[in-house]
Amino acid sequence: MKVAFIGSSGHYNYAMEGIREDRNISIAGIAPGSEGEDMSAVYRAACALGHAPRVFDDYMSMLDEVEPDIAVINCFFGHHAKVAMQVLKQGIHAFVEKPVATTFEELEELKEVYSQSKAHLAAMFGIRYTAHFMTAWKMVKSGAVGQIRLMNAQKSYKLGRRSEFFKSRSTYGGTIPWVGSHAIDWLYWFSGEKFESVFASHSARCNRDHGELEVSALCHFVLSNQVFGSGSIDYLRPKEAPSHDDDRLRIAGTRGILEVRGSKVYLINDEIDGIREIPLLPEQNIFVDFLKQVREQGKCLISAHDSFYVTEVCLKARQSADEKRIIWF
Amino acid sequence: MKVAFIGSSGHYNYAMEGIREDRNISIAGIAPGSEGEDMSAVYRAACALGHAPRVFDDYMSMLDEVEPDIAVINCFFGHHAKVAMQVLKQGIHAFVEKPVATTFEELEELKEVYSQSKAHLAAMFGIRYTAHFMTAWKMVKSGAVGQIRLMNAQKSYKLGRRSEFFKSRSTYGGTIPWVGSHAIDWLYWFSGEKFESVFASHSARCNRDHGELEVSALCHFVLSNQVFGSGSIDYLRPKEAPSHDDDRLRIAGTRGILEVRGSKVYLINDEIDGIREIPLLPEQNIFVDFLKQVREQGKCLISAHDSFYVTEVCLKARQSADEKRIIWF
Repeated sequence: MKVAFIGSSGHYNYAMEGIREDRNISIAGIAPGSEGEDMSAVYRAACALGHAPRVFDDYMSMLDEVEPDIAVINCFFGHHAKVAMQVLKQGIHAFVEKPVATTFEELEELKEVYSQSKAHLAAMFGIRYTAHFMTAWKMVKSGAVGQIRLMNAQKSYKLGRRSEFFKSRSTYGGTIPWVGSHAIDWLYWFSGEKFESVFASHSARCNRDHGELEVSALCHFVLSNQVFGSGSIDYLRPKEAPSHDDDRLRIAGTRGILEVRGSKVYLINDEIDGIREIPLLPEQNIFVDFLKQVREQGKCLISAHDSFYVTEVCLKARQSADEKRIIWF
Repeated sequence: MKVAFIGSSGHYNYAMEGIREDRNISIAGIAPGSEGEDMSAVYRAACALGHAPRVFDDYMSMLDEVEPDIAVINCFFGHHAKVAMQVLKQGIHAFVEKPVATTFEELEELKEVYSQSKAHLAAMFGIRYTAHFMTAWKMVKSGAVGQIRLMNAQKSYKLGRRSEFFKSRSTYGGTIPWVGSHAIDWLYWFSGEKFESVFASHSARCNRDHGELEVSALCHFVLSNQVFGSGSIDYLRPKEAPSHDDDRLRIAGTRGILEVRGSKVYLINDEIDGIREIPLLPEQNIFVDFLKQVREQGKCLISAHDSFYVTEVCLKARQSADEKRIIWF
């Protein structure tokens, strides 16, 4: 099975890690997906795994010449949809960085192209597969908090110095779709509810010379069954903090409250007094799960529907923040 | 100095604790503020401090006969404003449970009566005086997080079995004004920003036979200078949890992030690597601070303006949740 890498601007390492222990995969080609992308790190990572990919300047030529089974797409975020459509049109499975599109028009086009294709598509919601989120999700699905009523998700990142393409909405897409998409995915994945409305705010103030990049954002979601969810998103984590990110999720239900914080899982419910730290299940790899579906050995935890739906919610949240109004679904 | 207690449905203990070590105060009278309030616990608390208050059925008669300097008002929440207006009209200082009013009309009337009076009024935002919140506030005011950009406040309570008056909006006022008022007060007190808009949601589902009482609520505030604040409010804390409440506040700014959680204060900023737990300042008492202003020895940390303003924000948040629309200030 041949894999090609398009771009180097996102989480291509998910695929590298998944490929590491799979002898039936060859990394056949690499190419930038956006003008100016430096592919040297991807090349080195492939070589370090014992592969010798062909290097192209143009992903279109690569797709034609290499004829990969799978494309790993992680170029500038504003170009994901265009590249993914090309890939799907050639019948190639698309493992795409999120958000899979950064405009409503491209999202609709992409969905249409996907519906005409037999290939699989999944967005890189890799955080689902971490030990802590997978453990938390299984606890919630087993009924540990009862019926979900209220959820609070947090994404907090260090800003550092971001590449130039982060500074423009057209190439970056916005902080809610980029950073916030994970938070939105958790709200959806944990609750299984439908989004009914969003009100969001974002601000590029104090972004230390990062152009249009929003440094702070807040989202308020109303989901079906009067379930509410907040998403707090920022690049304000100081560089002195012990980790790059501070991902959190709190799920409050009729039987208890579960929290993910500091890569750990805590539960209070009606079974045992006090706060319990839940032992973690093993971490999984998203690309291995993606391969499972490509090989028709099972379903990937992230469906194309999930990938599109969460992207739509992200774009509606961004629209709400831009237009300072409630967006109804 | 004579103090009278009206009602027993809120935090009258703030006043009892403040009076405990003050030999110049006498608890002169107690009376219910709402029909059916049982005053026996207030009576016992007063006696335990060595006072022998006269007991009245009717607070109007008490005010006339006892002529107190200060009234501690904590009846059914829907009656705070009416009682406070009567108290102020008689030139008596009003230490009032929050929210100080549960309708816009009563809030406006109360403000008008206050402006005609020389008496002081403060709402019982007693959480400001806890060791952890006072420490956190002083850290933030000293510049520990730089310029505030994003705030997340949480109030989570055990529901238990609430008194009958909690089950009706007219006597209870709603969960956003009752439980949420603290969270809203923190956002205001820490940031010093003005509220520009609110979008909120609340739900009475799964309230275990508590009538109209909302068990979950979420508020999204836009404040001046593009500062955003969330308020997550619930009665979903399981009875097995180690404390009644789970108050939290996270303040993210340009220099760092401060958190109040589990009655502790944590700070990450650009001064020291890693997360620091901040040593706590001593707890203070809100009623002692209130007395300071009554005695013209200084300003109470909670002004009448603060009390009215936070109440207005609560009522606008409740309106937003009721009407499912953004309320602009």
